[in-house]
Amino acid sequence: GIVGAAFVDALARGGNALAARAGRPLKLAAVSARTRDKGRKLAPDAKWYDDAVALARAPDVDVFVELIGGAEGVARACVEAALESGKHVVTANKALLAAHGPSLAVTAEARGVALAYEAAVAGGIPIVKTLRESLAGGSPKRVFGVLNGTCNYILSKMETEGLDFADCLADAQRLGYAEADPSFDVGGHDTAHKLAILASIAFGTLVDAEGVHVEGIERITRADIRAADELGYRIKLLGVAAMTPDGLEQRVHPTMTPKSSPIAQAMGVLNAVTIDSEPIGEVTLTGPGAGGPATAASVVSDVVDLARGRFAPTFGAPVASLRAPDRAPIQRHEGGYYVRLAVSDRPGAMAAIATRMAERNISLESIMQRGRAAAGGVVPVVLITHATSEAAIRGALDRVVEDGYLEGRPQVIRIERE
Amino acid sequence: GIVGAAFVDALARGGNALAARAGRPLKLAAVSARTRDKGRKLAPDAKWYDDAVALARAPDVDVFVELIGGAEGVARACVEAALESGKHVVTANKALLAAHGPSLAVTAEARGVALAYEAAVAGGIPIVKTLRESLAGGSPKRVFGVLNGTCNYILSKMETEGLDFADCLADAQRLGYAEADPSFDVGGHDTAHKLAILASIAFGTLVDAEGVHVEGIERITRADIRAADELGYRIKLLGVAAMTPDGLEQRVHPTMTPKSSPIAQAMGVLNAVTIDSEPIGEVTLTGPGAGGPATAASVVSDVVDLARGRFAPTFGAPVASLRAPDRAPIQRHEGGYYVRLAVSDRPGAMAAIATRMAERNISLESIMQRGRAAAGGVVPVVLITHATSEAAIRGALDRVVEDGYLEGRPQVIRIERE
Repeated sequence: GIVGAAFVDALARGGNALAARAGRPLKLAAVSARTRDKGRKLAPDAKWYDDAVALARAPDVDVFVELIGGAEGVARACVEAALESGKHVVTANKALLAAHGPSLAVTAEARGVALAYEAAVAGGIPIVKTLRESLAGGSPKRVFGVLNGTCNYILSKMETEGLDFADCLADAQRLGYAEADPSFDVGGHDTAHKLAILASIAFGTLVDAEGVHVEGIERITRADIRAADELGYRIKLLGVAAMTPDGLEQRVHPTMTPKSSPIAQAMGVLNAVTIDSEPIGEVTLTGPGAGGPATAASVVSDVVDLARGRFAPTFGAPVASLRAPDRAPIQRHEGGYYVRLAVSDRPGAMAAIATRMAERNISLESIMQRGRAAAGGVVPVVLITHATSEAAIRGALDRVVEDGYLEGRPQVIRIERE
Repeated sequence: GIVGAAFVDALARGGNALAARAGRPLKLAAVSARTRDKGRKLAPDAKWYDDAVALARAPDVDVFVELIGGAEGVARACVEAALESGKHVVTANKALLAAHGPSLAVTAEARGVALAYEAAVAGGIPIVKTLRESLAGGSPKRVFGVLNGTCNYILSKMETEGLDFADCLADAQRLGYAEADPSFDVGGHDTAHKLAILASIAFGTLVDAEGVHVEGIERITRADIRAADELGYRIKLLGVAAMTPDGLEQRVHPTMTPKSSPIAQAMGVLNAVTIDSEPIGEVTLTGPGAGGPATAASVVSDVVDLARGRFAPTFGAPVASLRAPDRAPIQRHEGGYYVRLAVSDRPGAMAAIATRMAERNISLESIMQRGRAAAGGVVPVVLITHATSEAAIRGALDRVVEDGYLEGRPQVIRIERE
């Protein structure tokens, strides 16, 4: 595919500078691809294999690079075969890591080889190695970031051009930033895979992609984008992983981020990830989260590490030391909330809302009500709460709905502060 | 010192998680410090050495950590002794690296040991390893960043509080962000050391700290900060290294950075570094550039790498492959310029300025003249040029000065675009 072609190209262009960094020339020994013609054209000097698994077992290969994709099928079979035959593996396959990372890590460790995957998370941003090695001197408390360029492009465009979600999605599809079926991206599932991998490295836990609470960006409206702007926030689809007293919190959802935060500054298809660790504080990496050439460069960097004999346990610590995380239930999440309500313009509505909040000890940081509706109409009201729990805010809003003052469902967006 | 104490503390607190990352317990075997009492108190279980050089030669030590500082004296003697006796060295000493990096790298390579120095540049931000290893799959074109927290604090405060340089410097001194003699920081020399190290890694050249063109922030005024804000820029002390057709350009100076850039977003004592490489594009790291605990965490990360047997050539490529860079003269620098002039309020002044610019083929992106002065007074005029050369703009301004329409010297600030 695109990353594969870019990888072959990057190796060919690397020249002396790349060889100096790697300590030796990097040679593409053999190649396999879906169609023989394409593969041969791509790398005419490399040995051709019809069967990728056979290539993974080939005796004259030091490092096997998997750029096929998918959690099962050929990709999984190849990677397993390569590790079992004692080869280092470099992959960009986040789905594979999210689904089978720990078992693959067991094989890699047993054979004394590396399973490297810098390109699997945030494309050209070296977040995996940074978390796994560069910040090994600190203790991560929270990892959060913009990990999906499709969603970030859509949200950025909604803000800068004042358009609806549907229009921006269509635009992203036209530009090739979104798939024909965009649900994996806009529904937050791609971000969840990446987040689960980062959480494993950060907290020494087994990858738990199924434990991620996931909400997509489909319900974000222009009204939310505008209100966020007025309140000093920007809406991003964030993946957030934090170790809490209730266990590992992993969540993906549209989030109010303070405009001044580095995460909020990443616009368009850029990605950005913040690692908040003791005693370092917040370190943020911003850059291209996708694209063939940038992703391929991350693959090359992994290969250079292996050429130099540098490698780390797959998830930073020996796989035997990783424990299955307790899952912190989302109801126990604590933080501030943005709530947008369509309130019937009747006496007592605001009093009822305020009362329901007070019953759950929710204090409000700001209330924004713009003008009055026509008689019998609805008024848009935006609330920002101080820190409270998910259970409290959801409970309070259920009561507000029962009170009968609202049109439609409340819009609730969590706030993530620096 | 502070970093030393924080390092001892970090090792002690690391516990099982640190041991898992390192693959073994990390033990403080021995210690030396300026005063015996302080050193003994800090690490009562470690063996005490009065003589740091003797410690550097001790046979039962695997990794020697130098947190003394200074390009000469004990620090240099220790590091040389440790490397010569076949020990890995971890240091936070930018001055030593800037002055003697290549010769120390020769010794390290000859003995097959590492000279690691993540903490020497940008404290808690892992920029050294990112540039040396994580982005090894790309070819750097330009590295630039905010590398000095003192200057960034002062410039941030000038902007947010509308104060003068002198007031903000005094404030920084009160808070311990600036030294009693601040000239090394505010004059740009600290940034130059760090930049020279990063340039060596980025471009495969020998560290050339003396080849850095250095200007400090002492002449930045409130008027510049205000004009920058109005024009969509923020003034930062940047270090910029780029490979150009004329050779290696290394420069440290106050710089107009677009407000929307990640670099411009780093406020207060934060540091931020952008690496612009082919084919990755721009990757930016933002975080704490100083502080004992954050810096010590970078030292620990280096030690973890060594415990795992991970190391790279000192400057990314074998020292024999590093070449002395050709120095691109600052007069050949090309870019946009901000120029602030105090113009006599006489007929023909603006025409004369415009003519001098036109003579050198300098085209103007914007001209800002606010109101008129009292009779016989001066009018502040701010110009933003399109890309031109340093020689052209300096030449044109010399002629403007000769024309006699200006009060005082023109203020010239280079613009760095994304």
